[in-house]
Amino acid sequence: MDRVPLEQKVLSENDRLAAALRARFAERRVLCLNLISSPGAGKTSLLEKTLERLDPGERVAVLTGDIQTDNDARRLARFGFPVRQITTGGTCHLDARMIERSLTGWRPDAFDLLFIENVGNLVCPTSYDLGEAAKVVVLSVTEGEDKPLKYPGIFHRSSLMVLNKIDLLPYVPFDPDAAEANARRVHPGLEALRVSTLTGEGFDGWLAWLRAQRERHAQAATAPLAG
Amino acid sequence: MDRVPLEQKVLSENDRLAAALRARFAERRVLCLNLISSPGAGKTSLLEKTLERLDPGERVAVLTGDIQTDNDARRLARFGFPVRQITTGGTCHLDARMIERSLTGWRPDAFDLLFIENVGNLVCPTSYDLGEAAKVVVLSVTEGEDKPLKYPGIFHRSSLMVLNKIDLLPYVPFDPDAAEANARRVHPGLEALRVSTLTGEGFDGWLAWLRAQRERHAQAATAPLAG
Repeated sequence: MDRVPLEQKVLSENDRLAAALRARFAERRVLCLNLISSPGAGKTSLLEKTLERLDPGERVAVLTGDIQTDNDARRLARFGFPVRQITTGGTCHLDARMIERSLTGWRPDAFDLLFIENVGNLVCPTSYDLGEAAKVVVLSVTEGEDKPLKYPGIFHRSSLMVLNKIDLLPYVPFDPDAAEANARRVHPGLEALRVSTLTGEGFDGWLAWLRAQRERHAQAATAPLAG
Repeated sequence: MDRVPLEQKVLSENDRLAAALRARFAERRVLCLNLISSPGAGKTSLLEKTLERLDPGERVAVLTGDIQTDNDARRLARFGFPVRQITTGGTCHLDARMIERSLTGWRPDAFDLLFIENVGNLVCPTSYDLGEAAKVVVLSVTEGEDKPLKYPGIFHRSSLMVLNKIDLLPYVPFDPDAAEANARRVHPGLEALRVSTLTGEGFDGWLAWLRAQRERHAQAATAPLAG
């Protein structure tokens, strides 16, 4: 028995489910973003600050993944938007079937923006399509500017790199320009933003990026119906 | 075809190879430590500062794992101790076969302390025994004190938690006592040390821990021969 064909079978089954999710999101005009990072880079904090600044009337939902605990869902639920925890129980990534199951029972019109916070892991989540419109990689300035070269997969597949914890730049040996240059060696068209989820610095840029994605996605979703 | 039996087969094959490595290390009185952390928590920096402070006459070697690049081997080689890079090319962890292959050609008496720096990943490396005497988990204070609860596997299986980047404690919302308490909820007997690989703070404790492990290991290795 060889491992590679089985991994390919698992991934191709995942791709099939992800394609069905993507079609469902398109039909319902939902923008789905898959947030990926190392443990502790600030995915949950980014979402907290984002939900805090969104209008309570916005139709936004969050699925948040972890190996154990529902800490993140509890942190995120206090902003009033629908949040569900996916506890993988040991699995190092989310997969499309977990997303499909977690969406059960949510009204089709409950949200038009869905954040998926993946398990903290820069490697494995990269290979599992969740039907998202875009992957967003969060890198913190404490991790070192070489990380895009050492973990190229996720930087290659992401649409945006959010460089977080810029409030710590005075205290760590980290060159944000070098980090962005390294990321663009892996992925020349990668967009990049700098934020601090602690101080809120840079959030106007992040919220503007989100708005632009939502508008673009709504137009793209409308186009085939009009054509 | 089911995935679980295959994963078990892969893991049990790895366990067999790891047991052979462990026997080989015991025979040659080599203390092998497997360092595991998130990307950017400071494994390489910990090793840099350690090699810098060791006597050049000590018989110490390093195997360092990454998905891509040989940056770490180059960083570590400048201290004069033998260092080899293992580039996994996408695999999210080191396994016993990679270690066995990387040891080829090294003289049996080349070292009595072998550091293995795993791929940056708090999840997958946990399941792969490399024949080490102990796993050491490195957690940085920028990652949040909840990480032992969210990634319990590695904290459960490690002998020591090195809490790194304590120089950043004034600037981050992190309670080191809570982090240690969380780690001990998962693993009551876990030893813990606090260091800064940037300033060198806490390194006396880390070097003392290393010395104690080496002495204990040398005695344990000697005992059966004397028995």
